[in-house]
Amino acid sequence: MTPYAVRVPVRWSDMDAYAHVNNVQFLRLLEDARVLGFRSWFGPGPSMLDQGVVVSRHEIEYHAPLVYRLEPVQVRMWVTATSAVGFTVGYEITDPAEVGSTTYALAETALVLYDFESARPRRMTPEERAQTAAHLGDPVPFRWGRS
Amino acid sequence: MTPYAVRVPVRWSDMDAYAHVNNVQFLRLLEDARVLGFRSWFGPGPSMLDQGVVVSRHEIEYHAPLVYRLEPVQVRMWVTATSAVGFTVGYEITDPAEVGSTTYALAETALVLYDFESARPRRMTPEERAQTAAHLGDPVPFRWGRS
Amino acid sequence: MTPYAVRVPVRWSDMDAYAHVNNVQFLRLLEDARVLGFRSWFGPGPSMLDQGVVVSRHEIEYHAPLVYRLEPVQVRMWVTATSAVGFTVGYEITDPAEVGSTTYALAETALVLYDFESARPRRMTPEERAQTAAHLGDPVPFRWGRS
Amino acid sequence: MTPYAVRVPVRWSDMDAYAHVNNVQFLRLLEDARVLGFRSWFGPGPSMLDQGVVVSRHEIEYHAPLVYRLEPVQVRMWVTATSAVGFTVGYEITDPAEVGSTTYALAETALVLYDFESARPRRMTPEERAQTAAHLGDPVPFRWGRS
Repeated sequence: MTPYAVRVPVRWSDMDAYAHVNNVQFLRLLEDARVLGFRSWFGPGPSMLDQGVVVSRHEIEYHAPLVYRLEPVQVRMWVTATSAVGFTVGYEITDPAEVGSTTYALAETALVLYDFESARPRRMTPEERAQTAAHLGDPVPFRWGRS
Repeated sequence: MTPYAVRVPVRWSDMDAYAHVNNVQFLRLLEDARVLGFRSWFGPGPSMLDQGVVVSRHEIEYHAPLVYRLEPVQVRMWVTATSAVGFTVGYEITDPAEVGSTTYALAETALVLYDFESARPRRMTPEERAQTAAHLGDPVPFRWGRS
Repeated sequence: MTPYAVRVPVRWSDMDAYAHVNNVQFLRLLEDARVLGFRSWFGPGPSMLDQGVVVSRHEIEYHAPLVYRLEPVQVRMWVTATSAVGFTVGYEITDPAEVGSTTYALAETALVLYDFESARPRRMTPEERAQTAAHLGDPVPFRWGRS
Repeated sequence: MTPYAVRVPVRWSDMDAYAHVNNVQFLRLLEDARVLGFRSWFGPGPSMLDQGVVVSRHEIEYHAPLVYRLEPVQVRMWVTATSAVGFTVGYEITDPAEVGSTTYALAETALVLYDFESARPRRMTPEERAQTAAHLGDPVPFRWGRS
């Protein structure tokens, strides 16, 4: 399994009053990485995002400050676990190789498939399970934990 | 120790294309809770936020969908741990008592004190340690964990 | 006609890398003023915002920098014109009287009523025309114009 | 004078509860267009944006709804006027030619050069005036005006 990597541009407005990319905006970068990545993983048809997938948990560690620049960041993303009703995604936000070698953040998101019409979670289809399993990788190498 | 509680208004723009308050915007609500809460905890003078405090970690669980409404949400917040260079804050996002009894999210943020002039972490002062310890409470009752 | 006034809180994240409330975020403050104001003008039932109203034009002038503070800003708002299919709203963003007397911005928004089901503009009902006319006031006292 | 054109990606979070790119977010797209465009117009050194340029006015008309898509939008931008202390920028937000031919919005922004150290407007340097004049074009073809 080679982790999928996507480049996500930083916006000038991602910076906060400290002139760093704000910690909350890192989760926006991950949201866009998911949108781009899921199109690649699950195909261009009606996507999981269109049909509905709900975030049930985020965990993120910040390892280096990020300032606005024209070059996008690179988000490597992979599946860290699957279940009957969802899966978790691990991420590493870094410089693209030609720009540098800094790791800015590690993160994990738990996702639950959701049927917006019935307003209830739904089970993964066999096809979705196969597509998800194809991206299964290692746990996120977090450094820290809960207090 | 009675957890500090603050009311934070929801913005119409916090909703995403699913017409729910977006998962990332929950962390914006917590940011504003910290700004308000720290003013109360640490006093009106030059604040930790002015002098610099950096988020090193977030963990958040989503327990119920939140839709825009005129009534603010209530954020209970307390200290879950302290160290020489920082502390962690636990949160519970709920309805205010007169509005309902739904818990929308549980979260924890690790903070490191930071001296922006020297661009280095700094140690807590004895006064800051005492102020922080006064709000020490239980661990966040998270339901889930890493995959 | 006494202009309607509503207080809108500023968020810490409204500040940009210059540590001022970002010019774009002023339009967020006006969006929230409209949501609050329309509830007052048009009543608590299914609102124009629920049924659909689309912004067709904004004009805004910035007269003083605004920095984050705990005190909300005051937005005075009134109707500057009406038509068969919509109306325009004028605004003045100031300090609340007990905080100061600075005017931060003047603005105007043109709104078109929109039927999301048919995806077409719709005509104002007689009741909406009467409610809107009740808030008709002077033109916005803009200082500048197009280049 | 050929107007400068830059491509700006749309973010999933630019959509609001109506599942359209929110009207306020159009101004975010223009902000990023300026950041990219000014780097091209004024060179890669310490930029106007670093040294300080303040928005004093925006005007924007919305001509077609925009929904999230992977393809960026195209922003054509040019100078519509110059003065001793600033200049105005006109914009047209469209599809890139290979994607379509829809015009989503027309806009104009007035900018004032600002010296953050002295907290005062400053005069354009002769070099800045020449660089700005090189991009001077027609007025923005707005369809509508103030009420």
